[in-house]
Amino acid sequence: MNFLEERIVKDGVVKEGNVLKVDSFLNHQMDIGLLDQMGAEFKRRFADKPINKILTIEASGIGIACVAAQHFHVPVVFAKKSQSINLDGEMYVAEVESFTHKCINHVIVAQKFLGPEDHVLIIDDFLANGCALQGLIQIVQSAGAVVEGIGIAIEKGFQSGGRMIRNLGFQLESLAIVDGMNAETGEIQFREQKKGPAKAEPKEAADEESICRSSTLD
Amino acid sequence: MNFLEERIVKDGVVKEGNVLKVDSFLNHQMDIGLLDQMGAEFKRRFADKPINKILTIEASGIGIACVAAQHFHVPVVFAKKSQSINLDGEMYVAEVESFTHKCINHVIVAQKFLGPEDHVLIIDDFLANGCALQGLIQIVQSAGAVVEGIGIAIEKGFQSGGRMIRNLGFQLESLAIVDGMNAETGEIQFREQKKGPAKAEPKEAADEESICRSSTLD
Repeated sequence: MNFLEERIVKDGVVKEGNVLKVDSFLNHQMDIGLLDQMGAEFKRRFADKPINKILTIEASGIGIACVAAQHFHVPVVFAKKSQSINLDGEMYVAEVESFTHKCINHVIVAQKFLGPEDHVLIIDDFLANGCALQGLIQIVQSAGAVVEGIGIAIEKGFQSGGRMIRNLGFQLESLAIVDGMNAETGEIQFREQKKGPAKAEPKEAADEESICRSSTLD
Repeated sequence: MNFLEERIVKDGVVKEGNVLKVDSFLNHQMDIGLLDQMGAEFKRRFADKPINKILTIEASGIGIACVAAQHFHVPVVFAKKSQSINLDGEMYVAEVESFTHKCINHVIVAQKFLGPEDHVLIIDDFLANGCALQGLIQIVQSAGAVVEGIGIAIEKGFQSGGRMIRNLGFQLESLAIVDGMNAETGEIQFREQKKGPAKAEPKEAADEESICRSSTLD
């Protein structure tokens, strides 16, 4: 187990419905030393990429992204989430429809902060069905910028987001991939990861219930 | 001028209606080197305080708080904002009514992350009428914890929040206090600050339009 998996085992709480609570160290209270270790590990995994900007999404991605950015010496841009669009200035807006949550969200970034010169590392705390992440990828691509990689703290490996993103050819690095959880025993099963870039998995039909649809508004 | 005031003059944009846009370096795109300087300055100003936790509020306070926390070696807790309350577990909730925005917001922190043993530094990016800040102070006090200080990046000195908070006896340190702005010329007038803790100002009647009312829900 790596440092994050060990911390999840120590302080994470498994709840019914495949919920993993990590709010004591990651997304409500944040252990800054742990975030710093995560930043160093992202830097190791994306060492060969010419990253000049980190993109994340409010709210719980921001702390991880800002501490990680100190290892990359680049600025952070955080996308705003909104159910309504209030276009103040020129914005990239991705519309993300979540079938799971049965709502439409907008992911918004001011155009002046992303352009064709940017080589972007996307960072977020969780990856499950990948709806928000798809919105971020679309925004980077709308800007003519390059997604150099995606760094996630915890991926729910039993949901389809990670598989879809890897099948699209992105270098997606999740520091911990949870393949199963048991709310009764509290057990958590992690996917074994080789050191180095992840490989795309064989394509499988996406789980209908957990997919999401997203599109960019112009 | 200090480093933050210089940056505001260089990259801030004054808009009609006393709006100061600092989204290119502080609250949409974030200059992590600048955040680190701010963290060091907060540490200098609160060097004598036994701070063991930093409290901030989503979204734009999180980056500043997390980078500052590396200078204090303490965890960060971020409060959530919500117009509705979804009480999942035991929460401290402050109800903040903004007369300016004509809406009620809830500021929420899980009870397990704040208690009588905590000595809290509150950090946020902006202070204007101080509504959100009053909610945070109430939550710390509800928890039986101590507010050791309040660190703000930019205070709008012409609104009443800073005056009220200082009159309540808190050590409020704003790295830049804007006393006036001119949207036509782009000029920004900063309040001169002595190095060292700020003093309470003489009490004045609060500006009716910019006050807010807050209360803690139990």
